[in-house]
Amino acid sequence: MANKYRTYKKDLDYSYTLGIFLTIELLLHQPERVQCVFISSKTLNSEGVNKVIELCQKQNISYETNDKIISILSPKENCYVVGIFTKYTQNLEKSKSHVVLVNPSDSGNLGTIIRTSLGFGVSEIAIIKPGVDIFDPKTVRASMGALFNIHFTYFDTFFDYLENYQNHEIFTFMLNAKFKLSEINYQFTNPFSLVFGNEAKGLGKAFESIGTSIIIPHQKTIDSLNLSIAAGIALYEFTKQIVS
Amino acid sequence: MANKYRTYKKDLDYSYTLGIFLTIELLLHQPERVQCVFISSKTLNSEGVNKVIELCQKQNISYETNDKIISILSPKENCYVVGIFTKYTQNLEKSKSHVVLVNPSDSGNLGTIIRTSLGFGVSEIAIIKPGVDIFDPKTVRASMGALFNIHFTYFDTFFDYLENYQNHEIFTFMLNAKFKLSEINYQFTNPFSLVFGNEAKGLGKAFESIGTSIIIPHQKTIDSLNLSIAAGIALYEFTKQIVS
Repeated sequence: MANKYRTYKKDLDYSYTLGIFLTIELLLHQPERVQCVFISSKTLNSEGVNKVIELCQKQNISYETNDKIISILSPKENCYVVGIFTKYTQNLEKSKSHVVLVNPSDSGNLGTIIRTSLGFGVSEIAIIKPGVDIFDPKTVRASMGALFNIHFTYFDTFFDYLENYQNHEIFTFMLNAKFKLSEINYQFTNPFSLVFGNEAKGLGKAFESIGTSIIIPHQKTIDSLNLSIAAGIALYEFTKQIVS
Repeated sequence: MANKYRTYKKDLDYSYTLGIFLTIELLLHQPERVQCVFISSKTLNSEGVNKVIELCQKQNISYETNDKIISILSPKENCYVVGIFTKYTQNLEKSKSHVVLVNPSDSGNLGTIIRTSLGFGVSEIAIIKPGVDIFDPKTVRASMGALFNIHFTYFDTFFDYLENYQNHEIFTFMLNAKFKLSEINYQFTNPFSLVFGNEAKGLGKAFESIGTSIIIPHQKTIDSLNLSIAAGIALYEFTKQIVS
């Protein structure tokens, strides 16, 4: 069974969780995607591993002890459990608010944004291509497993996204913006879309005429806020009357 | 000159910037700490390298073309400029607000927090030991060079910190807190200290009796916010009437 699995590449139709915590999140929230689970011989009978085995048994998911495949899939670190899962596609819910990431390039940022977004109750993420691979094990880890609790969709262009979600009130985060974040009125009747650009380039000129542009003011001692920090602050402000 | 430099370790009395952007930040803001600059033979006459050379010449800092030392100090990546600098210690300003990190363990988080903090006008960072090394090249990179624009001090214990800065109004960020971030009154007469715990453990019980405890509410779908995200949101809220 294990022989067919190789180190992650974007074009494979599967990915994997590295470690007990992430694998438990996978087994809890996306059990139907799991192909199998590999367990290290070094940690049998640990509490976490027992929980993994229990979840596999309960859901009829195959698991086996296999140090070799673990060392192949996780060459650099101590890792005791790997969960293999089939990649999947989803649709975003039209009635809910979204985070839209235009050309995100850093898997750590993407994972952190997924986790933050879920924490603030926004569970729908749109990614405009080209964008970093959401199933990269680095993204899965940075999301702390939150990936398995959200919906996401890739779009070829931002306009494809707009066509599908015409009811959303669009807010674009950019340096050359009309409003400060603190000036925005939060009484929304429609769901909102918070749109963020690429880490290095931000949102281009074409976005200036779309929706309401917002800046998170900061001092000129730095060029810009880190993308995941900007998204975190925006999500906090847009949801603080809802999240309690 | 180059022979004496080795790959970074915490006990060395020097560290280095990897890349043109970080080296320019170093040369602009901490020129007196710079021992020398090494430049790759592959990029002579690029605009960034010319700026590096100009800054070295203006400030009488020695530089040389040396591919070998660059490949030693930056083995994994394309890097064209390395700036070697002597480590330094500083004091925090008593009249200014602080960020206090108790036992931070991730260099990426520390660097991102330094950058965010500087962006929101808080340029004084206290680190309570044990804590990740602020001069690790990974921290320097994650800070995007903001490290060279802030003051920082390591303290053996949080109480050492408190003794030195008794005028500061202390705010501790923890899950078991008395106030929500949005409930805090921002009319400060004294400078503030925003205190954050370790990534995995947060602030311990001992902190419950110190200052004003604050939670950034989030949904139970995640265990906690990432440390750098929590610090970013807190800094945004505490400074939003000041930063414009």
